[in-house]
Amino acid sequence: MKCKRCRGPAVVEVRRHNAAFCADCFVHHVHKQVRLAIRSHDMFGPGDRVVVAVSGGKDSLGLWDALLELGYRASGLYLGLGIGEYSERSRDLTRAFARERGADLIEVDLRDEYGFDVPTAGRKGSRSTCAVCGLSKRYVFNRVALDHGFDVVATGHNLDDEAATLLGNTLRWQTDYIARQFPVLPRREGMVKKVKPLHRLSELEAAAYAFLRGIDYVVEECPLVGGNTQLRYKEAMNALESGSPGTKAQFFLGFVEKAAPMFAGADAAGAELTPCERCGQPTTGRFCAFCRARAQVLGERLGETAGSDDDDRQTARELSEEVLPAELYARGR
Amino acid sequence: MKCKRCRGPAVVEVRRHNAAFCADCFVHHVHKQVRLAIRSHDMFGPGDRVVVAVSGGKDSLGLWDALLELGYRASGLYLGLGIGEYSERSRDLTRAFARERGADLIEVDLRDEYGFDVPTAGRKGSRSTCAVCGLSKRYVFNRVALDHGFDVVATGHNLDDEAATLLGNTLRWQTDYIARQFPVLPRREGMVKKVKPLHRLSELEAAAYAFLRGIDYVVEECPLVGGNTQLRYKEAMNALESGSPGTKAQFFLGFVEKAAPMFAGADAAGAELTPCERCGQPTTGRFCAFCRARAQVLGERLGETAGSDDDDRQTARELSEEVLPAELYARGR
Repeated sequence: MKCKRCRGPAVVEVRRHNAAFCADCFVHHVHKQVRLAIRSHDMFGPGDRVVVAVSGGKDSLGLWDALLELGYRASGLYLGLGIGEYSERSRDLTRAFARERGADLIEVDLRDEYGFDVPTAGRKGSRSTCAVCGLSKRYVFNRVALDHGFDVVATGHNLDDEAATLLGNTLRWQTDYIARQFPVLPRREGMVKKVKPLHRLSELEAAAYAFLRGIDYVVEECPLVGGNTQLRYKEAMNALESGSPGTKAQFFLGFVEKAAPMFAGADAAGAELTPCERCGQPTTGRFCAFCRARAQVLGERLGETAGSDDDDRQTARELSEEVLPAELYARGR
Repeated sequence: MKCKRCRGPAVVEVRRHNAAFCADCFVHHVHKQVRLAIRSHDMFGPGDRVVVAVSGGKDSLGLWDALLELGYRASGLYLGLGIGEYSERSRDLTRAFARERGADLIEVDLRDEYGFDVPTAGRKGSRSTCAVCGLSKRYVFNRVALDHGFDVVATGHNLDDEAATLLGNTLRWQTDYIARQFPVLPRREGMVKKVKPLHRLSELEAAAYAFLRGIDYVVEECPLVGGNTQLRYKEAMNALESGSPGTKAQFFLGFVEKAAPMFAGADAAGAELTPCERCGQPTTGRFCAFCRARAQVLGERLGETAGSDDDDRQTARELSEEVLPAELYARGR
């Protein structure tokens, strides 16, 4: 195979584009897709302060790398989740990445800052581990971005993530989640702008990029993720993609282009948000989902406890902003 | 396992209902689901004249059987497609079914009536075999129903068919197809009402019903169907269903309940239908999709030939009414 761009020997094939690239041209291809995503959704400009939520994995480190290469003002934000060796290794690789590039890295430790870690929360709370982890990330990313005056939070969600999530949301017709599954969520009172600049690139492309750029990243999956429903959606999408390359892109990018407007009215979030009585972040109830989850894990009483039947739904509606944790609903099904 | 209803030994398990049934109670269960479908979508009443489109397969013969058992005035309509032995066997089994029950069967042969058969059309026309077959069926069912004064055409689409079709439509966000994928399509000028009374029953349930009712049906798939994209969607849905029983029902019935209204505006069909200049059936152009396809196959000129670029889209929009031929778009991809 020859490189589509320079006709030299190709090292990466991108079937849905019916193209192959040599290493340099593949990096160029990735940067082009990232630039296209940023520009077409007006995600941020060269003067904006961007914070990349980094986990130590290929997607987020690759995103950070690409933004730095493209000349954006991108800091990293690492959240320590307390998942044993996995978290330690993730943190070390993230630190090494930042050090090598002389990039600014902010670190927050969930236990130091909020008194619990993810494994404990998974055991003690009423939420699944994945749900409380997603909730904590979204909360902390938003909080830190606001506190440090960042203009936008960028996450490393790739096309496979987005297609799988959209599949899960669509299979359940969770129209309010679908409504918010957009590559950019605008800033609102108390909520920083959120963007997904990798949404045009597949997981394979993200992995190839990290490899070709020499990024040392955590290869292992989170040890707590087993049986996650999101993985089943990815498998289903992979099966469809292999029979018909381009299915994922058609599904997610087609949604963004054609179908998202139809769901806009279904986004019930935020109509009447008020500050959480504990932390001040916007919420639909008295206390935000994060403060409620945290109080439950720590065994604290949080004023009158609201009925927890609607907790999961509320969790999803408020504060999250960033779409759907498919796994939120995995537990009860 | 015990029968959920009578506590006798069960012979069929229905995982998504978390239930099992003995033979008699399973038949009762199927009838109940069919009645529920008919009632909740106001499909037809005891006084209406129903014509069941029968192929000789488990779904359509099972549907016809159930409607007769439930006391409806149900005739059968068999369309000879000219697919060699497969068609002959289908016809013979359909005739035997009708004879045993003393039921009214109408037979139409595509070649006798319209001058071509499906294999020829697949070879000669610009459409895929599945597309021209689907088009012909929809055309003839509607035509015969109108000519014989039937109130409604019933087809044997089951839950698996509908879920797979909806998946295909959704993966491409074919919003106009999605808009029309409803268990009932009302009567309009020149278009008879169309209903799918089996949409609450899985393929497995339809097969078990046919078996337990002693219906002799064609087990083989159509020999021309190989590589049909619809089959891939079924496989994907089956994989998801096995991980999470109820996924198909949640997807399709959830669509019917929650999401269909959002797509209602996307149904561009029929806004300005005029009679086909050749056959009089409603169409968006001068000639309907069936007459255009037929003329192409027979090598006839049909007035000025319209550009055929939009043919497939138009095929889908007009006359079809009955949802999406997923396979329509399989060819060009």
